[in-house]
Amino acid sequence: MTSAGKSSSAGGLLDPDRPDGVRLTVSEANEIGSRALGKLGFSDDDTQIIMGQLIDNALCGYRFTSLPRILAIAEFEKFEDNRKPMRVIHETPVSALIDGGNNVGYVTVYRGMEIAVAKARQSGIATVGIHNSYYSGRLAYFVERVTEAGFVAIHTSCGKPRTLPPGAARPAMGTNPICFGFPTTKYPYIMDMGTAAFMWGELMLHAHLGQPIPEGIGYDAKGHATTDAAAALLGGVVPFGGHKGFGLSLVMQSFGVLSGARLTRGQVQDFGFFFVVVDPKLLIPDGSFPEQMTELITKIKATPRQPGVDEIRIPSERSFRERDQRRVEGIIVDKKVVDSLNAL
Amino acid sequence: MTSAGKSSSAGGLLDPDRPDGVRLTVSEANEIGSRALGKLGFSDDDTQIIMGQLIDNALCGYRFTSLPRILAIAEFEKFEDNRKPMRVIHETPVSALIDGGNNVGYVTVYRGMEIAVAKARQSGIATVGIHNSYYSGRLAYFVERVTEAGFVAIHTSCGKPRTLPPGAARPAMGTNPICFGFPTTKYPYIMDMGTAAFMWGELMLHAHLGQPIPEGIGYDAKGHATTDAAAALLGGVVPFGGHKGFGLSLVMQSFGVLSGARLTRGQVQDFGFFFVVVDPKLLIPDGSFPEQMTELITKIKATPRQPGVDEIRIPSERSFRERDQRRVEGIIVDKKVVDSLNAL
Repeated sequence: MTSAGKSSSAGGLLDPDRPDGVRLTVSEANEIGSRALGKLGFSDDDTQIIMGQLIDNALCGYRFTSLPRILAIAEFEKFEDNRKPMRVIHETPVSALIDGGNNVGYVTVYRGMEIAVAKARQSGIATVGIHNSYYSGRLAYFVERVTEAGFVAIHTSCGKPRTLPPGAARPAMGTNPICFGFPTTKYPYIMDMGTAAFMWGELMLHAHLGQPIPEGIGYDAKGHATTDAAAALLGGVVPFGGHKGFGLSLVMQSFGVLSGARLTRGQVQDFGFFFVVVDPKLLIPDGSFPEQMTELITKIKATPRQPGVDEIRIPSERSFRERDQRRVEGIIVDKKVVDSLNAL
Repeated sequence: MTSAGKSSSAGGLLDPDRPDGVRLTVSEANEIGSRALGKLGFSDDDTQIIMGQLIDNALCGYRFTSLPRILAIAEFEKFEDNRKPMRVIHETPVSALIDGGNNVGYVTVYRGMEIAVAKARQSGIATVGIHNSYYSGRLAYFVERVTEAGFVAIHTSCGKPRTLPPGAARPAMGTNPICFGFPTTKYPYIMDMGTAAFMWGELMLHAHLGQPIPEGIGYDAKGHATTDAAAALLGGVVPFGGHKGFGLSLVMQSFGVLSGARLTRGQVQDFGFFFVVVDPKLLIPDGSFPEQMTELITKIKATPRQPGVDEIRIPSERSFRERDQRRVEGIIVDKKVVDSLNAL
């Protein structure tokens, strides 16, 4: 019971001092995860794609969107006995519509991103939509791959109803994140945000720990306001920022429809993953866009600060720094998670 | 001294009962505005484009982004003695980079939108960037034109520094709105949002009326928190929603750089207007996307409601309804504004 429309940042930060955690090198973590995915029946290619993201999430400090996700996929997989190979069902030089064949989004969205990049390389710009899939993880992971190719990305995802429109008693949209990415000469600028007021992964954790959630966030299955996380899991949460968040969430749901969401089960409120990839040379033909982006970020960071403020922090900067550090220091995974993976 | 990066909704709603207002038919308002723009030296073509938006803004109930804007343009125009014809400086079948020639954005962005639509008609998708321009008004106006052509639009704009990054003492981004539009079988779904916590037009109004603004919003020219609107006009405002709003604002600034912002004055933090236009038939080739969007909106509106809630309101719905009504009932304009326009 996890959401495909989950924001990249779903999950909170890793606590390096947890006594119930084990410190692993990247290759150790990769080996444990790959073996588990192999046992779940994933091909070597798919395993490599999935682990690519899960390791990256761990390095960037996202606690729940790393190795623990394999256990969630395993639960989900039990229901997935009618998978088919994903396939492009409509294609032009600037677009592809992809039927994900009921395969996990970690793989289908990665492949979709690759197709979008390949088409943008040929045509300068491309759009790709993916449906009949679920559960793609962290949007910024795919978007960073696009920026590595030197391109600008707009990427959205939407899922099944978990978020309530203002005034509603039932959820109607997914947690619906949106992500933008721009290449610079160093770290890309990546902005990845969910549109729900509370991350679904956090809600699951609160339910698991029996912790209440703040007031005004959750509604139970009958539409009553609740601070009980377990009750809200059966109902839903409100969008962040009221009508602005609602409007944005509905934008992601609309891009989902454009990505063929309705083709999966005849339901417009279903999973959909959308990309626009743009070669910046279309508009800045001399190739200086990454340098100009670096200049923008440098200028923003150099804005005079309030007393006591050390630094103007750019979104995504923290996770890139943490990744650099963790590549050296290793990542920390719950001992219980490692045991469960080894027992699969 | 008004902002180009203004959100469509800048300005608040019209109060139909104001005693200092005059009720005008669309053609009366158009005649007054067109005559004023003609006196300011705008060509008939440009006048028609500008009035198209100003009348639409009035019909949709936006008080300050209608005829009063002509007075603001007039003030701005005094500084505009080096205008040149706008021109496409780089072009492919899927893109155009436009030098706005220091002309007003109402016109350059409209022309850019037309070029994006024409290219999307040919190629299925297109991106257009416009720089060396300012002051385009309400993003939703351009985006609605794109949806009338049957296309999906992503449109952003950014302006000169007015919004402070978290922790900053000086503004670094514009008020930077973003707008998305999707065709349906009836009204399009249009989501148009600024990323500043307070609309610049509202700030100007508060300063004009000597009214304070809420705490935590404004900073003066020295970077001190202030509730004095006039002081905040010389400093800036915070983004909405903290780091999320900041991250989004920086996305718009990045699209501005992609649109050639730096080419205007060598400054990355300058005006830039960006479009992506997508023919939904690229992904939904049977042409049923508008019907599917209508189904989505219908489903969302049919979500069970909280007790006492009459309706799930979709963003942009209110302004479309008001427009239908005002086309019959006429629009209300400040008497002072009409007098000032007639005196130009």
